[in-house]
Amino acid sequence: MREKTVEIRVIYADTDAMGVVYHMNYIRWFEIGRTELIRDMGVVYADLEKQGYHLPVTELHCHYLSPARYDQIVCVKTKIAYMRRASIKFEYELYEKSENRLLVEGYSVHAFIDDRGKIVRPPREVADRINREIIEK
Amino acid sequence: MREKTVEIRVIYADTDAMGVVYHMNYIRWFEIGRTELIRDMGVVYADLEKQGYHLPVTELHCHYLSPARYDQIVCVKTKIAYMRRASIKFEYELYEKSENRLLVEGYSVHAFIDDRGKIVRPPREVADRINREIIEK
Amino acid sequence: MREKTVEIRVIYADTDAMGVVYHMNYIRWFEIGRTELIRDMGVVYADLEKQGYHLPVTELHCHYLSPARYDQIVCVKTKIAYMRRASIKFEYELYEKSENRLLVEGYSVHAFIDDRGKIVRPPREVADRINREIIEK
Amino acid sequence: MREKTVEIRVIYADTDAMGVVYHMNYIRWFEIGRTELIRDMGVVYADLEKQGYHLPVTELHCHYLSPARYDQIVCVKTKIAYMRRASIKFEYELYEKSENRLLVEGYSVHAFIDDRGKIVRPPREVADRINREIIEK
Repeated sequence: MREKTVEIRVIYADTDAMGVVYHMNYIRWFEIGRTELIRDMGVVYADLEKQGYHLPVTELHCHYLSPARYDQIVCVKTKIAYMRRASIKFEYELYEKSENRLLVEGYSVHAFIDDRGKIVRPPREVADRINREIIEK
Repeated sequence: MREKTVEIRVIYADTDAMGVVYHMNYIRWFEIGRTELIRDMGVVYADLEKQGYHLPVTELHCHYLSPARYDQIVCVKTKIAYMRRASIKFEYELYEKSENRLLVEGYSVHAFIDDRGKIVRPPREVADRINREIIEK
Repeated sequence: MREKTVEIRVIYADTDAMGVVYHMNYIRWFEIGRTELIRDMGVVYADLEKQGYHLPVTELHCHYLSPARYDQIVCVKTKIAYMRRASIKFEYELYEKSENRLLVEGYSVHAFIDDRGKIVRPPREVADRINREIIEK
Repeated sequence: MREKTVEIRVIYADTDAMGVVYHMNYIRWFEIGRTELIRDMGVVYADLEKQGYHLPVTELHCHYLSPARYDQIVCVKTKIAYMRRASIKFEYELYEKSENRLLVEGYSVHAFIDDRGKIVRPPREVADRINREIIEK
């Protein structure tokens, strides 16, 4: 299955008084990971929204293994675990680049909804593009 | 003129690896300060928005004098410097509570705009309420 | 078991372009919830740190049920699910105040570590205070 | 004088319920701008800190001209306005890439301090590298 890795440089704004990245801030990077993964598949989330579709997070899980520090480069590797009728699950592995040290493992589950908040199937073309990537592995 | 002081406890999320509040995060508290000041005057920003008015920030200034640290209580004192035809200026003084130590002085200028982004005068009732407070001192 | 509920007013900084609280930002409020819960038990996290103890998050889970919006008041109800030799688990229930609408359910697991990052038992007095609350229910 | 432009993709986390980037979040990007500018000059801020030097923000100013929106690319152009005995001023121009639309102009002033918070001159080599860039224009 297709994976996507994006690199992010830790800035001061991401850190906390323990000298490491504040645990919440990795979740910002999950967003970047999944957005760039589907962009690579030809699915631009901003376009989905223009068509009236949204993908709010319904579930989120993080396992914190080792902390990232200021100015380190964090690699965010994202893949799709599954796509169902009206939901999609992304999996993330974040590791520090120079030492290849695993930082965080996590996942997020999202529902497809329309502008009124009703759960819907994604547009056929989007479903096709994503399913093709999942099956092809 | 009416002033409003709100108290905020510094959490880990607000701090950075220097062990102090990251400079950007005081600006979150400016928002709380001005929102609660005008609420005290009977002007609820959420209601203004429902009537089609918005108050985006057009200018922002901060002078950082001393840092706040984890678990300290920050007092945000806000007042209105002026209200003009289509703009309003808030001034902020943030100080650490237990030592009465001045942390940050700043201001923000905001424009009144409508839903299409056009600069407009605020609703008469809002202008009246705020002007009354400024004049009465 | 003792529970603690803190109330937080949603500000613009917490929201995103979907018009609701960005999913990550609820996790800031988890921190406030657990800090105020243990403060009520006589355990001040800032003091724990001065004694050389830290409680980094090792696991985090959120289930998002309904979104909070600008200016709504979010109630963060926190309790301790368990305390083990060197770890502690907090559970959170966030709901919108005026409608008593459930927003987010979640938990976080934390390890007790010392200044060098080694996993340790918490100070006896802290363990006693917390265990007393758990048992007493 | 040397300038540095870095490009940042707006994510959902950066936006607010007005549908635009929350005004505070541009200040995160100022940090990225100045860090990458001095890195280009051979000055790595993380190394400065290891030598016991810090550069806290003492003053900050932003002028907001036009809002950035979700998924747009923001170009952060940074240069040094001056370097004095113990302080340095950075200037920022942020614009939206596809339309070359100016978003925010701002500056930040920083003091050189040592580990105890005392104002100091920067290391000779750092001062030389930066001064060379400013003079050469």
